[in-house]
Amino acid sequence: MKYETGLSVRHACREGVLNHQTAGLAPGFVQGNLAILPGALAEDFERFCQLNPQACPLLGRSEPGSPHIPALGLDLDIRTDLPRYRVWRDGVLVDEPEDVSAFWRDDLVSFVLGCSHSFEEALLEEAVPVRHLEMNVGPAVYLTSIPTVPSGPFSGPMVVSMRPLNPADAIRAVQITSRFPAVHGAPVHLGFPEQIGIADIGKPDYGTQPVEVRAGEFPVFWACGITPQSVIMAAKPELAITHMAGCMLLTDLRNEELATGVAA
Amino acid sequence: MKYETGLSVRHACREGVLNHQTAGLAPGFVQGNLAILPGALAEDFERFCQLNPQACPLLGRSEPGSPHIPALGLDLDIRTDLPRYRVWRDGVLVDEPEDVSAFWRDDLVSFVLGCSHSFEEALLEEAVPVRHLEMNVGPAVYLTSIPTVPSGPFSGPMVVSMRPLNPADAIRAVQITSRFPAVHGAPVHLGFPEQIGIADIGKPDYGTQPVEVRAGEFPVFWACGITPQSVIMAAKPELAITHMAGCMLLTDLRNEELATGVAA
Repeated sequence: MKYETGLSVRHACREGVLNHQTAGLAPGFVQGNLAILPGALAEDFERFCQLNPQACPLLGRSEPGSPHIPALGLDLDIRTDLPRYRVWRDGVLVDEPEDVSAFWRDDLVSFVLGCSHSFEEALLEEAVPVRHLEMNVGPAVYLTSIPTVPSGPFSGPMVVSMRPLNPADAIRAVQITSRFPAVHGAPVHLGFPEQIGIADIGKPDYGTQPVEVRAGEFPVFWACGITPQSVIMAAKPELAITHMAGCMLLTDLRNEELATGVAA
Repeated sequence: MKYETGLSVRHACREGVLNHQTAGLAPGFVQGNLAILPGALAEDFERFCQLNPQACPLLGRSEPGSPHIPALGLDLDIRTDLPRYRVWRDGVLVDEPEDVSAFWRDDLVSFVLGCSHSFEEALLEEAVPVRHLEMNVGPAVYLTSIPTVPSGPFSGPMVVSMRPLNPADAIRAVQITSRFPAVHGAPVHLGFPEQIGIADIGKPDYGTQPVEVRAGEFPVFWACGITPQSVIMAAKPELAITHMAGCMLLTDLRNEELATGVAA
C-alpha cells in the first residue's frame, strides 16, 4: 500500500493498519519526533528546546490535555496517529503500544520536533548520497561530549547522527541543510570525531550498525532527535511517551516549506 | 592617511599618492581583480568568466576602448585608479607602472572580477579567523588539478587560496561564503589537498609564505582570482594589463550588497 500524504499515514495508523517505520512514506511531508510529558515539566522542556534548537527543533506543541496540534495537521490525534509508541515511567520503558489513549491524562503536553528525514530528502534531491539509506539501515548515531544547555531537570550530552561524505558533497550538504533549521540545520561537526568525544567511529552508541567512512571521505555529524529522548530518560519523569525509533508522526507540512532563503 | 571610500582610494591612486596594496583600505567597499585585454579576445574571455564563475566572478566590464565602468563607480578611470599595474606582452611581464594611459588603445576591454577581500571581511565580521591576515601576509595559493572550462584560447587549471580552519569554523565559512557568489562563493574543497592535485600543503605555488594548518584543522580551499591571470598568461595575448598582486581596484559597491539570501 502506498501513502501519498501525511493525512493518509495518520489515518492508517489510527485504523491500526500501519505499525511500522515511516521512512519513505508520504514523500515531501514533514515527519516529526514525538515527546509527550506531564504538564508540570512542559515549560522546562519547551525552554530546553528553545535553548538547543539544533538538537531539538520544535515544530509544534499541544495545549495541556489536548491530543490535537492544528498547526501540524487539522485532522491529527496524537494518541493514535503514530505507528507505534514507547511509554516510559521514571525513565524505564514499560510498554510499546500502537495507541496511547489508555495512558492519556488531562495535563499531558505533546511536543513534535523536526527530524532528519526532511533534510535527507533535500540531500537526495540535490544528488548528495546518503549511505545508510543505500544500505537500508538507520544512521549511525553517537553520544558526544558536546553539552546541551540545561533547563530544569533536562540536561545531558548532544546525540549526533553521522553521514559519510566526500569533500565536495560535504560542502554541498552544509549549504543544503543550513536551509533547514527546523530539521536540525547545518552539521555540528565534520572530520575529527575525537574532538566531539567519539572514540571509535566504528562503534555507534545507537543505530543498527556502523556506516563505513571510506578513504577520502569525512564523517559529517548532525544534531540528532535522539538527544531529547536521551535527556528525558535521564530526567526520569513519572510518565513520558515518545515515538518508537523510526515510527514518526506524519504532518501536513511540506519539507519545502521548512526551507529558508537560498544558500547557494 | 585613512581611506574611507572606494572613491577616495581611486582619487589617491589617480593623483599618484597611493601605490601600495589595498588590503584593509576603505572597509566595506568591494575590491576587484583587473584584466584588460584586446577587443579580439574580449568575447572569449567574458565567456570564460561565465563558464568558470567560482574562479572568475565577473563584477563588471567596460565597452571597447572606454576606460570607464559606470556600474562599479561613476567617477572611475581604469587607466589611473589602481595603485599599480602589470603590463604583459605575449605572456611576458614588461612593465609595472602606476598608470597605464600610455598603453591605452581604442579596442581594449576591461574586466573587473570579485576577489577574496570581500568574503574575508564577511568571515571576520562573523568571528571566523583568517590566519594569513593575522600573520599579515597574503594567503597560501596553489595550482590544482581541477580543470577550468575552456573558452577560445583561455584554459588551464584552477588556482585556489587556502585558509586553515577548525571544523566548526569551516562549517560556518561554507555558510558565510556561500552567500557571496560574486566573490568566489563557497569553498571548492576542504580536507584532502591530494584530491585536488596539491602534493605538499607546505609549498604554495603563489603567495609569500606557507600558512600553517594546525592539528585539528582543515585546509579549506576557495577558487582564487589568480586563475584568470594564470590562464591569460598561458594564452600569451599580444597585450594584457592586470593589477599588481594585492593592488586592487576599489569600487563604489558595498560588500554587503553582494550577499545573497540567508544561509544560516
